[in-house]
Amino acid sequence: MVFSSKLLETAVNEVSRLPGIGRKSALRMVLHLLRQPVSDTFNLTEALTKLRNDIKYCRTCFNISDDDKCSICTSMRRDQGMICAVEDLRDVMAIEKTSQYNGLYHVIGGLISPIDGIGPSDLNVESLITRVRNTGADEVILALSPTMEGDTTALYIRKRLKETGVKVTTISRGIPIGGELEYADEITLGRSILTRISAD
Amino acid sequence: MVFSSKLLETAVNEVSRLPGIGRKSALRMVLHLLRQPVSDTFNLTEALTKLRNDIKYCRTCFNISDDDKCSICTSMRRDQGMICAVEDLRDVMAIEKTSQYNGLYHVIGGLISPIDGIGPSDLNVESLITRVRNTGADEVILALSPTMEGDTTALYIRKRLKETGVKVTTISRGIPIGGELEYADEITLGRSILTRISAD
Repeated sequence: MVFSSKLLETAVNEVSRLPGIGRKSALRMVLHLLRQPVSDTFNLTEALTKLRNDIKYCRTCFNISDDDKCSICTSMRRDQGMICAVEDLRDVMAIEKTSQYNGLYHVIGGLISPIDGIGPSDLNVESLITRVRNTGADEVILALSPTMEGDTTALYIRKRLKETGVKVTTISRGIPIGGELEYADEITLGRSILTRISAD
Repeated sequence: MVFSSKLLETAVNEVSRLPGIGRKSALRMVLHLLRQPVSDTFNLTEALTKLRNDIKYCRTCFNISDDDKCSICTSMRRDQGMICAVEDLRDVMAIEKTSQYNGLYHVIGGLISPIDGIGPSDLNVESLITRVRNTGADEVILALSPTMEGDTTALYIRKRLKETGVKVTTISRGIPIGGELEYADEITLGRSILTRISAD
């Protein structure tokens, strides 16, 4: 891109560093800001700065929070005996959206991936073991992605949790609701037959 | 989306106001910033703030500029007798990228569109007429989009320029280079036959 303004070039460079944003989209976004009132740019930069400087992570579950303890952990309406282990806060949001779960969470913060140099000590696994032991939780639900990294991490957590004696479950895998059989991949379809459930 | 943090929610709301950014992409971008060093967020917000507060528009051609006159208008290597009229600065950038044009520009700042309430007085047309008259330019090239608004605007500019006696040209329309005839739309193909050029 040929810029007639250094200010514009710097702004486009910075915006295009964001994930999924190419230089053309970055330019479009920046030009949009120039056409809008100054207050729009101010509100945007203010929100990002405040978030980056003031954000906290819940001391119990490591979910993003405005305080030392998140609103889920401090809620009296939540089942304190159930902990759902997820990779990151987007999974918390996805599960919360279903309105089907009323327990607590534990944000693992990633998945074991030797290629990326991520081992168990980089994740919030130790704190999960300690938490289960201290709170005497009844059940830990593993809700990790069904990928190699997810399965490896789930296996590791299961092993570590064994010593605590807590019940460990995993979210069910199978054909998505509304999905057509013929379009399902064979591994999912195969697994869904092996792990079939009673039709009663 | 169910947020456990007000700071996060505000940031996602602001980012998703940008054109072409949905709430999921906004969340992904914001979480990316949280994982990167604080300096990344600072550099981004600093670049946007500086751009929005300090940007100027060239007094001669209305291109975005860091100073009162843009680097194209002040360049001694440019043909001062040629002015290319474009809709906005993205068109300037596109033409500059071709390295085929060595004249100056005039950024019209939009297209005449009665539906959107944009008339000639909202655009930088008057300044183009004055500029042509004052500088005694040899040629004005109209490089506007081949849409109804673009054609209307071009027609209006041509009419207004008539009184100055300047030579007015328009960029050629036709089958794009590398484009296959059978996939060209019929209006373009029809026009390319009517406006055929000598094959010498």
